[in-house]
Amino acid sequence: MSLSVSIPLALGLNSAAQADEGMWMPSQLPDIAGQLKAAGFRGNARDLAELAKPPMNAVVKVGGASGAFVSKDGLVLTNHHVAFGVIQYNSKPDRDLIQDGYIAADRAAELPANPDYRVLVTTGFDRITDRILAGAAGKQGRAYFDAVDAATKAAVAECEREPGTRCSVANMYYGTDFYLVRQLELRDVRLVYAPPNAIGNYGGEVDNFVWPRHAGDFTLLRAYVGKDGKPADYSPDNVPYVPPAHLQVSTRNVKEGDFAMLAGYPGVTFRHRMASEFANQIDWQLPSRVALFQKMIDVIEGTAEKDETARVAYASQVRSLKNNLKRAQGELDGLRRSNATRVRREDETSMFAWLDRQPDAAATRADIAAAQAVLDAGVATRERDQLIGVIQSQTQLLRAAITVQRLANERTKPDAQRETGYQQRDEVLITGQLKQAQRRYAPQVEKALLTELLTQYQALPAAQHVPEFDAVFGTTPAQLKQKLDAMYAGTQLGTEANRLAAMQADRSALAASNDTLLQAAASLMPALLRLDDEAKASAGELLRLRPAYMRALIAYRQSQGRAVYPDANSTLRVSYGRISAMDPRDGVHYRPLTTVQGIVEKHTGEEPFDAPKPLLDAIAKGDFGTTAEPSLDTQTVDILTNLDTTGGNSGSPVLDAQGKLIALNFDSNWEAVSASWMFDPRFKRAIHVDMRYMRWLMAKVYPAPHLLKEMNLPAE
Amino acid sequence: MSLSVSIPLALGLNSAAQADEGMWMPSQLPDIAGQLKAAGFRGNARDLAELAKPPMNAVVKVGGASGAFVSKDGLVLTNHHVAFGVIQYNSKPDRDLIQDGYIAADRAAELPANPDYRVLVTTGFDRITDRILAGAAGKQGRAYFDAVDAATKAAVAECEREPGTRCSVANMYYGTDFYLVRQLELRDVRLVYAPPNAIGNYGGEVDNFVWPRHAGDFTLLRAYVGKDGKPADYSPDNVPYVPPAHLQVSTRNVKEGDFAMLAGYPGVTFRHRMASEFANQIDWQLPSRVALFQKMIDVIEGTAEKDETARVAYASQVRSLKNNLKRAQGELDGLRRSNATRVRREDETSMFAWLDRQPDAAATRADIAAAQAVLDAGVATRERDQLIGVIQSQTQLLRAAITVQRLANERTKPDAQRETGYQQRDEVLITGQLKQAQRRYAPQVEKALLTELLTQYQALPAAQHVPEFDAVFGTTPAQLKQKLDAMYAGTQLGTEANRLAAMQADRSALAASNDTLLQAAASLMPALLRLDDEAKASAGELLRLRPAYMRALIAYRQSQGRAVYPDANSTLRVSYGRISAMDPRDGVHYRPLTTVQGIVEKHTGEEPFDAPKPLLDAIAKGDFGTTAEPSLDTQTVDILTNLDTTGGNSGSPVLDAQGKLIALNFDSNWEAVSASWMFDPRFKRAIHVDMRYMRWLMAKVYPAPHLLKEMNLPAE
Repeated sequence: MSLSVSIPLALGLNSAAQADEGMWMPSQLPDIAGQLKAAGFRGNARDLAELAKPPMNAVVKVGGASGAFVSKDGLVLTNHHVAFGVIQYNSKPDRDLIQDGYIAADRAAELPANPDYRVLVTTGFDRITDRILAGAAGKQGRAYFDAVDAATKAAVAECEREPGTRCSVANMYYGTDFYLVRQLELRDVRLVYAPPNAIGNYGGEVDNFVWPRHAGDFTLLRAYVGKDGKPADYSPDNVPYVPPAHLQVSTRNVKEGDFAMLAGYPGVTFRHRMASEFANQIDWQLPSRVALFQKMIDVIEGTAEKDETARVAYASQVRSLKNNLKRAQGELDGLRRSNATRVRREDETSMFAWLDRQPDAAATRADIAAAQAVLDAGVATRERDQLIGVIQSQTQLLRAAITVQRLANERTKPDAQRETGYQQRDEVLITGQLKQAQRRYAPQVEKALLTELLTQYQALPAAQHVPEFDAVFGTTPAQLKQKLDAMYAGTQLGTEANRLAAMQADRSALAASNDTLLQAAASLMPALLRLDDEAKASAGELLRLRPAYMRALIAYRQSQGRAVYPDANSTLRVSYGRISAMDPRDGVHYRPLTTVQGIVEKHTGEEPFDAPKPLLDAIAKGDFGTTAEPSLDTQTVDILTNLDTTGGNSGSPVLDAQGKLIALNFDSNWEAVSASWMFDPRFKRAIHVDMRYMRWLMAKVYPAPHLLKEMNLPAE
Repeated sequence: MSLSVSIPLALGLNSAAQADEGMWMPSQLPDIAGQLKAAGFRGNARDLAELAKPPMNAVVKVGGASGAFVSKDGLVLTNHHVAFGVIQYNSKPDRDLIQDGYIAADRAAELPANPDYRVLVTTGFDRITDRILAGAAGKQGRAYFDAVDAATKAAVAECEREPGTRCSVANMYYGTDFYLVRQLELRDVRLVYAPPNAIGNYGGEVDNFVWPRHAGDFTLLRAYVGKDGKPADYSPDNVPYVPPAHLQVSTRNVKEGDFAMLAGYPGVTFRHRMASEFANQIDWQLPSRVALFQKMIDVIEGTAEKDETARVAYASQVRSLKNNLKRAQGELDGLRRSNATRVRREDETSMFAWLDRQPDAAATRADIAAAQAVLDAGVATRERDQLIGVIQSQTQLLRAAITVQRLANERTKPDAQRETGYQQRDEVLITGQLKQAQRRYAPQVEKALLTELLTQYQALPAAQHVPEFDAVFGTTPAQLKQKLDAMYAGTQLGTEANRLAAMQADRSALAASNDTLLQAAASLMPALLRLDDEAKASAGELLRLRPAYMRALIAYRQSQGRAVYPDANSTLRVSYGRISAMDPRDGVHYRPLTTVQGIVEKHTGEEPFDAPKPLLDAIAKGDFGTTAEPSLDTQTVDILTNLDTTGGNSGSPVLDAQGKLIALNFDSNWEAVSASWMFDPRFKRAIHVDMRYMRWLMAKVYPAPHLLKEMNLPAE
């Protein structure tokens, strides 16, 4: 290995160029204390670094997203959309909590969540890099991958011996560092307060990703534990969990330019990928995805046009393809607008120039060159890999046949050694998929889709061909037609019972089957397993080699006086910035605070703009009390900040300079879709519920004075 | 008659409530000099009052809209869309001036406009109220109408005895005052400079009514006269017209808040209509128009769905119905947003309260009550009148039959006494209509439309029924079907030659015709003539009675220290205000200056966002010289002001406080569609080309240094 740099970096400098970008590990915050203070933070950055101390120990993972404790009795604040499953689970025909919302009059009226709903409190975050990489030393490729995988599984298993504990290993800086994350798993979660859906999700799909926004996307839950204070399944005897700390909702006003800080669990970003990966994403991956999805939509719609049943069967798949296409196009537009390829390339070129002036550059350069070779090999088969991926994910019967064959394969191993996704605990999900295929399938559509995808595959150069695929589907359009016709004429998998029976069959029974699709899947299986193995070997190599790149990048940034946050990986992160307006396009300026006037303007009486009458009446009455924003002389609703977020940050608490809770994150703007690759300060914004709107709703519109009191908030 | 007030009013007060609203007659400007000065005007308001002096004598009517002289050699600046016909007329397959634009290298290269294209210079504006009303004294209804009509025609005929003069009588304040407008009619107009359509109409229909806007909607023409200086038809021997004055294009920068003033020929507004008319418009006319047009669109599309020929034939009518529906809906939304019914009603109630305290209120109140009775009678038959209007305007064959019958009727009179629209000079237009019917007609669609409209008619209460319509179309759905089937089976008017032959036939020949549609039209004719007579009688009564209302309103405003401008009527008007941002909805702020960056942002390469390469290159080069806005450090494109405009104001020059030309009006914003009834300062804006954009285009992108020099402008 090459450059030695300490991570996190001790830096006192504040670089304007970097200001406000970053999803920082809490442990890094003391190192960027200067930046934080310059941005307006008034607390001690050291206090933010301790996961087991306030305020970080008040920030939790809820239902796959984020949330925070807001009372000493375990009240959890998160988004309405994050708690939606809980609200839905408690709704009945005569008690529509989605439509009406819910206010638990007292503790006894708090409604148990669906049993799989979790609140996770992070209790440990320990660097275990040496332990994870010990067995990988000297290995390469698949062996490196397997060594890291085995060490990870062992660490998790050991950690989870403690009852009520959920553990995971977080990979920071692409294989550079590994952390063991320990979380308390609270299993008894209850619904306390939810606004009507027409408030929590005001604007619905139409306003999704849109600013100006007017949703009251919040819900209050409460975590319960056994009388012994330990995590427990739901029981009427359970008692509210007493969290180690909770956040105090602010009663002060906020305005444009105010400091803001957010903590939560962002899912995944790609900001520190190599320049060639940016180019591949922008020049090929996204455009080809857009083109392929459009083609698939055209094929499905064209084939199903005159067949009402087929149209219904594929409606959901078409909707999903359209959403993914839209998102890919948005990401592409954004990355192009930000000149991401050029910006990243120039940055990397500068880094290499700097690196080459360092004494120990050669070894690092060699590792990076090797990583680049792995990436280049991936690029050489990207067309094939995209098509084979889509063939497996976007078909119903062929996918079922492949799944069934793969499952039979994996079942020959001990459960712990089976592939993720094919273990015993995954079989419920697989059964569900196989059942669902029934409602999402029409033979002529699947054949038309495969004809399109495999015709594209047949046109690829020989180097990208896979012998098993050529054998099963032929190498000419005529062969393809004949093979697909035979395959779909001779299969019984169109019937649900047959698919479920095949799932139960063992390898030898499947091998003996004369079902044409099962036979095809069996013939493809060696290729799929081989491709899977190759992918893992590549992943192992990148795991081994990328740290050289990351260390070079970190050292280069250090030379510029800048720190580097790791790309997001669903661990607790902190970002900071300010309440920020935005200029989305020439001539248009977005103000960073919306008001109830916007609710009235958007109201049509029809979903998703069907504001409830009590809300409209309260707005008309204008009785906003202490929650009104004085400078606007009305009630605010949502807030725009430049905080650095991504998927998973839903429900993240937004704090002011004093650490008080001023807002609740719930979305980002359309222009920021590309932020998973590049943070462009002109366009990256996050959208939050103003806590003053929540307070007003809870005080004046759907009153819950007992909950305001519990949160130490005024009743009006 | 009742209240005596002097018009225009001499007022020194400036009311903030009224600030910036108003389409003032130039003669009123000295009376509101205080307002003008307070708004930022730095000149002498008295200079603006004189039509025969600068700057007003530089403002002209061009191609039905507005424009201004901008050089001493007759150069006229107007919109690209106002001069579009001229550009189109000069385009050929091998010389596409629409696509490429045009720069006349010298005078010889200036291209003659279509022969009917006119530039009109107002030379006289004289109050002739006494003359117009002399013959009407003591009369009522139709007689009052006819007396005014006859006096108007006589005044026009006398005025137009002067060769090269076009005259008209303008009715101000709804019959209160009449002015004789005298205009010099310049008939030799030539194309001098036009940008490519992709600049002049950048954004096309998509951006129509939209802010932020990025169109360079301007064109330069030149007016020519005979060697004697008098108006003449085109001749190569003609010489440039030397206008009495011209405007100087500004070379100073402008910014938000700067004073702006506009002069032009706004078409029609309804701001001073009575409160009941506002209520009728908002509660019935607009909603019923929206519903009826939607129904008609549904009927046409439903009937033509499977018939490609019919679909093509009705495409234009459907598009027009959709445009009108959209506009009606926009007007309705805007008027509701502005609470127009309530605001106007409260204003009128206050006026009546004030009026009733005046000594001579009774006579005024009696006249207003009588006017209200006329309006109420109109409301009583509004459903019938709307349907009969649509039946005549939205059918092809039935309309043709009615037109032919009416023309035969009118031809029995001396030409001067024939109805407007049926005089000898109108026959070319009628012939065109009758020919065009061929391409816009399918019998099953016309029958379906009539079935819908007449079924609605049949459902009306008896009081709204017309005996002739009942006889021709029956009174039950079954009768209607049978009558329409017979009518369309037995007509020969589906053939163009037969329609044109019928147009040439005299009354007796038509009476003898056994064509079923001609017979139906003959049977309807007495009803149509009677309804027409009733409408004119109502119009006459309103012409007689509305002045009482207007005088009361003017006197009431005078008591508040406010002047009243007459509703727009295509005469020269001046409005003033400032360069103004806008908040179209909660959270969104529109800046009042757009920049070339927006052209790049909107550019897709496809119409209407296909910015020409020379423009994109010049933007990328960033060489904006003296035309850049220093505060934005780039080139501006369009400007938003709060100037009071309506249709007809296209091409109006926008002047600064010193009377210099800073912009050229070309559109208004969508939120201002309702401004024809109510000026809401929150939403009424006008959209202009920044003269700096024109100067930059002419200096750097499509250079025309000789024209810049002619306009006394720097070459860069």
